[in-house]
Amino acid sequence: MRKEICLSGSGGQGLILAGIILAEAAGIYDGFEIAQTQSYGPEARGGASRSEVIISNEKIDYPKIGKSDILLALTQKACDKYVNSLKEEGVLLVDSTNVFNIPPFPGKIYQYPITKDAIDVLGNQLVTNIISLGIIVQLTDIVSKDAIKKALQNRIPERIRDINKKALEHGFQIGKNLMNTSRV
Amino acid sequence: MRKEICLSGSGGQGLILAGIILAEAAGIYDGFEIAQTQSYGPEARGGASRSEVIISNEKIDYPKIGKSDILLALTQKACDKYVNSLKEEGVLLVDSTNVFNIPPFPGKIYQYPITKDAIDVLGNQLVTNIISLGIIVQLTDIVSKDAIKKALQNRIPERIRDINKKALEHGFQIGKNLMNTSRV
Repeated sequence: MRKEICLSGSGGQGLILAGIILAEAAGIYDGFEIAQTQSYGPEARGGASRSEVIISNEKIDYPKIGKSDILLALTQKACDKYVNSLKEEGVLLVDSTNVFNIPPFPGKIYQYPITKDAIDVLGNQLVTNIISLGIIVQLTDIVSKDAIKKALQNRIPERIRDINKKALEHGFQIGKNLMNTSRV
Repeated sequence: MRKEICLSGSGGQGLILAGIILAEAAGIYDGFEIAQTQSYGPEARGGASRSEVIISNEKIDYPKIGKSDILLALTQKACDKYVNSLKEEGVLLVDSTNVFNIPPFPGKIYQYPITKDAIDVLGNQLVTNIISLGIIVQLTDIVSKDAIKKALQNRIPERIRDINKKALEHGFQIGKNLMNTSRV
C-alpha cells in the first residue's frame, strides 16, 4: 500500500499545516510510515502552493513524488497546474468558491464551496484547510477519523482548537453529503 | 549548488517548524529552489524526529534525501542515529544540554547547551529550535540573516513573535562566539 495525497492552493491557505496534520494522523496515530514534503521556489510568493503526503505500510526510504491518488485544489491555478499529476483513477476535490473550470479528468470529481463555508458557517476563512481535511478523510478513509482528530488536537494551539474541531466535523458532514453526488 | 540540512531531535522540539522557516527563508526570500521534508513511522511517538531542507539553485524535481551538509542534533539519540548521514566535510551542531557523547566525525563539530540557554536566557524551552536556527545561519551562511528574519516574522504568531526574535538574535550571537572555538 502506498498512497499519495497532494494538497494545493495558494500561499497562506494553511496547506503545509494541513499536510503535517494528515501525515501525523497516518504516521503517529494510524501506524503507517509517512513522508511529508513541500517544494517550491521564489515564484511561490503569492503563487501556487502545495504540500504532499505519502502514506505507506513500508518504510519510505526517500520521498520521491509520483502521481497522486488524491488532489485537493483550492484555487483555479493550482487545479490547472496539478490535475495532470493525479492518477486517472484518482480523486479530485475542488473548492468551487475559487475553481470554476474543472479540467478534463477521468477519475472521481467532488466539488464544494469550501472557503465559502469556512466564512459563512465557521466565521473564519483560515479553517478552509481543516474543513478540506475533514472532507478528504470522510470521502477516502485515507486515515481514521480518530487519528485525524488526535493529530488536530496535537497540532492546533488551544486558543483556536474549538473552531478547528468544528471545522473538521463540518468537513466530515460535507463529505457524507458529497458521497452520493460525485460527478464522474 | 545543492545543500542539505538535517534538523534532528525528538518530537515536540519544533523541528518541523524550524525546517519550514529555514525553507521559506531560502525559497521565498533568498530566491532558491527548496524542498522540505519530514518522514517517520509509528516509532516516532516520543522518539527521534527529523526535518530536512534541501536548498538548490536548480529546480528540485524530487526531494531524494542524500548526505547532509549540516546536521543539528538536539538529543543523544538523534546524534547517534543521524551522524552517519552527514558528509565527511559537513558541519555538526550538537546541543550539549542533552548530547554528552559525540560520535567520531571528521568534519567540523560545534557544541553548545542550546536548550539550557533557551530556559536560562529566554525563559522558555520552546525557543530551542529558533536559537538553533540562529546559530546555524551565523555559522554557515546557508541563508541570509535578512531572509531568516523575514521567514520567522511570517511564520510565528504575533503573540510569541518577540521572544522568538530574541531567540534568533541570541542564536546569531552564540554562533559568533562559536566560530573560533570549533573542535575539529
